[in-house]
Amino acid sequence: MKRTIVISIPALNGENRTRIADAARLKGFEALFFENDRAALPAAGEAEIIFSASALLAGNSPLLKWQCTPSAGINQFLGDHVFASSDAVLTNSSGAYGVTIAEHVIMITLEMLRRQPEYNAIVSRREWIRNLQVRSIRNSRITILGTGDIGRECAVRLKAFGPAVLTGVNRSGRNRDACFDRIVLQEQLDTVLPETDILIITLPGTAETFHMMDRSRLALLPDSALVVNVGRGTVLDQRAMEQELRSGRLFAALDVFEQEPLPPEDTLWDCPNLLMAPHVAGNMTLAYTRDRIVELFLEDFENYCSGRPLARQVNLAKGY
Amino acid sequence: MKRTIVISIPALNGENRTRIADAARLKGFEALFFENDRAALPAAGEAEIIFSASALLAGNSPLLKWQCTPSAGINQFLGDHVFASSDAVLTNSSGAYGVTIAEHVIMITLEMLRRQPEYNAIVSRREWIRNLQVRSIRNSRITILGTGDIGRECAVRLKAFGPAVLTGVNRSGRNRDACFDRIVLQEQLDTVLPETDILIITLPGTAETFHMMDRSRLALLPDSALVVNVGRGTVLDQRAMEQELRSGRLFAALDVFEQEPLPPEDTLWDCPNLLMAPHVAGNMTLAYTRDRIVELFLEDFENYCSGRPLARQVNLAKGY
Repeated sequence: MKRTIVISIPALNGENRTRIADAARLKGFEALFFENDRAALPAAGEAEIIFSASALLAGNSPLLKWQCTPSAGINQFLGDHVFASSDAVLTNSSGAYGVTIAEHVIMITLEMLRRQPEYNAIVSRREWIRNLQVRSIRNSRITILGTGDIGRECAVRLKAFGPAVLTGVNRSGRNRDACFDRIVLQEQLDTVLPETDILIITLPGTAETFHMMDRSRLALLPDSALVVNVGRGTVLDQRAMEQELRSGRLFAALDVFEQEPLPPEDTLWDCPNLLMAPHVAGNMTLAYTRDRIVELFLEDFENYCSGRPLARQVNLAKGY
Repeated sequence: MKRTIVISIPALNGENRTRIADAARLKGFEALFFENDRAALPAAGEAEIIFSASALLAGNSPLLKWQCTPSAGINQFLGDHVFASSDAVLTNSSGAYGVTIAEHVIMITLEMLRRQPEYNAIVSRREWIRNLQVRSIRNSRITILGTGDIGRECAVRLKAFGPAVLTGVNRSGRNRDACFDRIVLQEQLDTVLPETDILIITLPGTAETFHMMDRSRLALLPDSALVVNVGRGTVLDQRAMEQELRSGRLFAALDVFEQEPLPPEDTLWDCPNLLMAPHVAGNMTLAYTRDRIVELFLEDFENYCSGRPLARQVNLAKGY
């Protein structure tokens, strides 16, 4: 029987596809490309490997050994009976999104500090108003929740702006590549929030992170603090956040929401002190990200073919 | 006769004023603060030192020895007969604006690369569209015209984003603090423009820089290049720039214009591929900038009182 890799990632370009097909052929696999998950469904039945974010394909591939999702988040694969094959392992593309998400974080942080939404409105009215008081990353106290790829890529860039202190919050106390001025353990989060001017959330959506930033923790932030969320919407209590924004006490820049798409009738759409984006900080619309996802897949494909452990295997029990 | 310092800078806060008044008193000076230049006019007649951006005060202070302007640009002081006193020297506040202008540059560069104006429009319509192709500073070829304080502060930050190459263009070949990957002499500008994805203009407005980026030099930039101007509007041929934007070939983010305020009827206001700001990249609305201006003035006040050369003296013949 032919060994097949079923690939359903519309964003891949011709060069990406050629690289994958060539690597597959060298190892005795056939790479089958599909433009969407439904079209890939018939081929999933015999797939040994799937390269797709689709849980539908996972649920319809009884011979599956390995699925690689081009996403960093893996929420769609959590729960029982997602995989039709009992010995399938899942890898994600953690490590591909840090660059693009960090650029988004720096951009929206500066937009909020420099009151760019207000200046954009001034320009749209053809007015010449220049006197809005602005703030700076320089000398700001920055706390980043999560010190994985995304948190570290943010830290490397923020450091060049001269913050007062750059604190990473994690569960290990580990400070990889010394990206952070200091690491605070997650249990000590409450001690660092009152000294945080800019809070950046990069955490995945798990049971453990659900509403980690709840009403009482938001209340610990000093007046005028800025909350940036590029992790998952469920980490932040969205209604508590909205109250802090409507009262004028805090500012926020949100790329992720508790429900996505954010319903058109949600009151957040016209909330003051808030800059929103439709979950675009880390998608595959950046060529660098897309190419990096293919590179990471091919690295793990080499591991797979050599019988080595896969580098980005997800622990489905932990959820990341 | 009493030695006086006339200060007309509305942005100064109470702490700034106290610091200046205390330093003045220690050296036998009286610091006189005014809320605007016209109010300061009567006192200018006996001023030995003026701390103000006003050419009106310069023209009405026959006993003036030293004027410090809180701006970096000094165009208002060029030309004959600006100073009523023949032995007055002028210093500027070069070195105070690099931080705030660099943050503005990174912000608007990312906004253009990540198509933030379009995403803002999508959000304002409560839509959930996520598939706009974006670009990155990572692996981009960046050229900065001018390697003074502003150019260097931009370079330090941009380097953390991993550009392909960061080129500074100046007249000396000097690479202070090794901020740039390489320095190209101004005479060789034409050789570097075809290899530039992002061009950042930080030059002052002088006879020498007038229309340095003219139609033919803009034509040397590759398709889709981004032009960022935070120097002076006159460095860029605004009409030639507009043609390149309207044809869809280039992108631009402009904080400065050939005529300011930009007239309401100017066609630039609704030009595509363009993000505009009303000359706000480097004004005194950032506390850090305002405090730094006071520090720089007090440094040179010490120099002045000790008979040492002033650190930031402007060469009025050269215009910077």
